[in-house]
Amino acid sequence: MNNTNATIQKGDLVFVYLDNRRQFLVQVLPGAQVQSDFGNIPCDDIIGQPYGTTGKTHLGHAYHCLKPSTADLMFKVKRLTTIVYPKDLGYLLLETTVGPGSRVIEIGTGSGALTLVLAKMVAPDGIVYSYERRDEFMENARKNVERAGFIKNVTFIGRDVAQEGFDDHMVDAVFIDVPEPWEIVPHATRALKGGYHVVAWSPNIEQVKRMVDALQSNGFIRTQVSEIAEREMLVRERGVRPRERGITHTAYLIRAQRILPPSGDKT
Amino acid sequence: MNNTNATIQKGDLVFVYLDNRRQFLVQVLPGAQVQSDFGNIPCDDIIGQPYGTTGKTHLGHAYHCLKPSTADLMFKVKRLTTIVYPKDLGYLLLETTVGPGSRVIEIGTGSGALTLVLAKMVAPDGIVYSYERRDEFMENARKNVERAGFIKNVTFIGRDVAQEGFDDHMVDAVFIDVPEPWEIVPHATRALKGGYHVVAWSPNIEQVKRMVDALQSNGFIRTQVSEIAEREMLVRERGVRPRERGITHTAYLIRAQRILPPSGDKT
Amino acid sequence: MNNTNATIQKGDLVFVYLDNRRQFLVQVLPGAQVQSDFGNIPCDDIIGQPYGTTGKTHLGHAYHCLKPSTADLMFKVKRLTTIVYPKDLGYLLLETTVGPGSRVIEIGTGSGALTLVLAKMVAPDGIVYSYERRDEFMENARKNVERAGFIKNVTFIGRDVAQEGFDDHMVDAVFIDVPEPWEIVPHATRALKGGYHVVAWSPNIEQVKRMVDALQSNGFIRTQVSEIAEREMLVRERGVRPRERGITHTAYLIRAQRILPPSGDKT
Amino acid sequence: MNNTNATIQKGDLVFVYLDNRRQFLVQVLPGAQVQSDFGNIPCDDIIGQPYGTTGKTHLGHAYHCLKPSTADLMFKVKRLTTIVYPKDLGYLLLETTVGPGSRVIEIGTGSGALTLVLAKMVAPDGIVYSYERRDEFMENARKNVERAGFIKNVTFIGRDVAQEGFDDHMVDAVFIDVPEPWEIVPHATRALKGGYHVVAWSPNIEQVKRMVDALQSNGFIRTQVSEIAEREMLVRERGVRPRERGITHTAYLIRAQRILPPSGDKT
Repeated sequence: MNNTNATIQKGDLVFVYLDNRRQFLVQVLPGAQVQSDFGNIPCDDIIGQPYGTTGKTHLGHAYHCLKPSTADLMFKVKRLTTIVYPKDLGYLLLETTVGPGSRVIEIGTGSGALTLVLAKMVAPDGIVYSYERRDEFMENARKNVERAGFIKNVTFIGRDVAQEGFDDHMVDAVFIDVPEPWEIVPHATRALKGGYHVVAWSPNIEQVKRMVDALQSNGFIRTQVSEIAEREMLVRERGVRPRERGITHTAYLIRAQRILPPSGDKT
Repeated sequence: MNNTNATIQKGDLVFVYLDNRRQFLVQVLPGAQVQSDFGNIPCDDIIGQPYGTTGKTHLGHAYHCLKPSTADLMFKVKRLTTIVYPKDLGYLLLETTVGPGSRVIEIGTGSGALTLVLAKMVAPDGIVYSYERRDEFMENARKNVERAGFIKNVTFIGRDVAQEGFDDHMVDAVFIDVPEPWEIVPHATRALKGGYHVVAWSPNIEQVKRMVDALQSNGFIRTQVSEIAEREMLVRERGVRPRERGITHTAYLIRAQRILPPSGDKT
Repeated sequence: MNNTNATIQKGDLVFVYLDNRRQFLVQVLPGAQVQSDFGNIPCDDIIGQPYGTTGKTHLGHAYHCLKPSTADLMFKVKRLTTIVYPKDLGYLLLETTVGPGSRVIEIGTGSGALTLVLAKMVAPDGIVYSYERRDEFMENARKNVERAGFIKNVTFIGRDVAQEGFDDHMVDAVFIDVPEPWEIVPHATRALKGGYHVVAWSPNIEQVKRMVDALQSNGFIRTQVSEIAEREMLVRERGVRPRERGITHTAYLIRAQRILPPSGDKT
Repeated sequence: MNNTNATIQKGDLVFVYLDNRRQFLVQVLPGAQVQSDFGNIPCDDIIGQPYGTTGKTHLGHAYHCLKPSTADLMFKVKRLTTIVYPKDLGYLLLETTVGPGSRVIEIGTGSGALTLVLAKMVAPDGIVYSYERRDEFMENARKNVERAGFIKNVTFIGRDVAQEGFDDHMVDAVFIDVPEPWEIVPHATRALKGGYHVVAWSPNIEQVKRMVDALQSNGFIRTQVSEIAEREMLVRERGVRPRERGITHTAYLIRAQRILPPSGDKT
């Protein structure tokens, strides 16, 4: 049934690629244009074509209509905050049980890059409860998630969780992306199933220490902290070598699993 | 509806955790026992408890019944081959479009660690076509995937793809894990949707170069190669520092996207 | 005798430090000035003071007169070429026998950053034979070494060594910093003592492979290749973390030791 | 004059190399033997030969008489303590002014691996004041330095410096290798020339923070902290790749420069 190339629909997000410096994540809408110094591309030239199609700008440069990867969707959100990197998020996802059907809490929503990945991964029947206390961030994130097409698996909740706590969810995982993650931990014990995972990430060592302490004193075990580094290799006719400059630190990655209190009741 | 702790069922995979040296992925079956130098644990003590429960071995040591992460499932397969590492696979997954409903090719099946992750991530309606030319590997992988509970989303195919090619799938992604990935590339162009992703990984630079060449001469673009490093941080009362010894190389990670031939027809 | 602070002399190189963005390696000459957006500093205010003195610019900002490290001298040469990094050179120096009294060949001279370090380390009685085929590079390097005060331990030789070979030195180490180091290896066997070290460094894998091949076919053994990475840690009141962006690759470091031909005669 | 191969003398340290698993730093003494599973080598076969000579064990395996590098001398000391690694020490040396003629303090002596490198580098006229409070460490280190031939440039001082301070040296650099380096810093200000360098290294972040605080409150500026990583590349016929397992952390490297108190007198 699916044995054909996918056709680009009106409203799709298409990764329009000319070269490594000219690449755009475009929502193709009738009448709109992609503009670059290599020439313009009418979206009407793209709509209805199969993904993988090569076209030409009005200046004659070739462009390719690619399917955006999940990482492409993350990097191209409109950012009001720093975002978690794919190298870190990919690792953390596998360190949890998250998959189709999972029910997950995310705090804070931030720019929504994590939100859309979680929403994508728990579809079609799972849900992401995304908590954010700043309205403008939530509105921006909502637009980012909507544009990427994953809004139906997200419930946004505007709240200061450190003060007011979570709703009574019993989710499969809690993803904490706030500057003081240890303030969230006591609330996480009330919203996370026994035996399941909490994950967090922080740039500074001091944050890591406070978070690890909070996990240990709130009934989490198997706490682990890692750092993930990515280095691009340049594979070229004239020689192979790693890229000479790049990102050298993003965050320390923390995860742990909740144990139930001795009585076995779920607090 | 889901707002309760999850209960451990007969046949579940449970991550039984005593400490960092005594941790076991156990399929809990009536009458079976978990054995360690800290004492034995009858599976009957575990079945019917909620995840997150703490119990005691017959020698009085505490153990915790945790939900295994996806990475736990990968690491604990019975291995006949090397496996892809979670640090690498998590990154690669986000570099593709893979998610619920995806249709994916994997070659070769190997020990099935990748198979089960892909199967989990494409559920409930997606499918993994897993190609392997060695029968004993496929049989071992089938058991590993079955035990992890993801068999319904996998179709195993015993074939030497370098010689005979793929079936006519038009999938969303092709994951290549064989020593000579460049032999698979010409076949991948016939089985992968235009605009979508092929990924591969190899330990040696020479393999990377040949693979990149094969991709470029078979209609793939946006080829990228990276290396991902993971370093554990030890966060302890007496001081925080990175672990002193560990893994320093696994594989170079390659990905690219297919473009359609000029005519636009799908081969 | 030496038990006093060192006094800054006319012509000395002084590391004038205001903050991490305003730091200058200055040759203090009467009548000259150090200029910055934090104000000017007459060298006459510096000459005659002890190292470690704090003064004020004409705008009232504090500056400190520090002794430049060897790495400071390297980084502040006038560069016509890329230079070897201290992280790489420090490692390579310890991988050889180089120290006071050593006799060393360097090729090519380049900007003279390596030349001045070698000259410093072999003083007072050792010698660096520095080969360079491009006159303008040698003249620039000569000035850099002279300014740093190490000229008396260097002999510059203008020559295309790949074509004409070395003089008959029998040195303790050969440092090769040219794009095609393998062209130099056959000559190195004639200029290096048996059992001693040749070192080289190259950014690309292909260069490394050709160099390793050349070493093995020219009577060198114990060939080793390494990569050295440096990452700065930011230790600040508000938190400790690694720097977020930086250098991710400079060069692969190669070293080997010469064995004598079976007869024992020295070529 | 020096234009010949070097001849191995009685009492020399020779690096006897069979292959990467059979390599020995041997002091060649008449009547002694080098023993391995590849056969024995009488030292009398080695004495009087030029470095670089190839011989045969009594079982017919080839061995090579190489000149030990400075790093070889470090790694092969008899160790009672952990030692600083060449990757770290090489970097730190270039971050100071140390070279021929330097006057340097080291604390503590430990196994003497650093002592011998410093002694080698400050020869022929410099001096290393090596402080150690544990007699058995100092005696072991003295033997290690003597065996390596650098004893004449070292003065050993048995003292608990944290309690009693340094002698009044005014040295060019202070190398601190103790678990609580911050206890040494107030004493370092009295023993180090203005504008010159103190260096230290510690495995844990907490040590780094306390050290940086101590430096800042004792008149040191331009404090920098780095981590150096080394990764071996395996260059082989069947493929080039980094080594798969290895050392992932040794120590954080700290250095700073002393400024004089406002009056300009040297405290």
